[in-house]
Amino acid sequence: MPPSLRVRLGRAVRRLRRALGHSQEAFADAIRVHRTYIGSVERGEVNLSLDNLERLAAGLSLAPWELLREAEHETDATAPQP
Amino acid sequence: MPPSLRVRLGRAVRRLRRALGHSQEAFADAIRVHRTYIGSVERGEVNLSLDNLERLAAGLSLAPWELLREAEHETDATAPQP
Repeated sequence: MPPSLRVRLGRAVRRLRRALGHSQEAFADAIRVHRTYIGSVERGEVNLSLDNLERLAAGLSLAPWELLREAEHETDATAPQP
Repeated sequence: MPPSLRVRLGRAVRRLRRALGHSQEAFADAIRVHRTYIGSVERGEVNLSLDNLERLAAGLSLAPWELLREAEHETDATAPQP
């Protein structure tokens, strides 16, 4: 079993945030959420809502579906394509 | 402004559910949610959680990101690609 989607999403958010050179705090400020929220998301603790998924994705300059796809590929990079 | 993501997601769920020939009730039973929940989702009333997005997508034989992509294309079919 791969990690749950929320865990993979957290990893993807952390990876993409860092790739943009943002601290958790700067990223949180940019998308107007509390900075502890970003930490919780990145640790896979949050059963994120659609609205907040949209907000996170926008902060990473991605469409929500693109962010989810990043998340699903987080541990599936070597899985065969359907 | 296009409709919010949750409204577009609701439309996509309705379209895809019907394409599979499921009633709201049969679909709800299949994915083990209450049947009124499906109606609420399809009307765009629910700020869906990641866990329930996963469940809905599985019921439609899609990956969560594929369902979101369907949702985003719901009113953007004619928009230019980036």
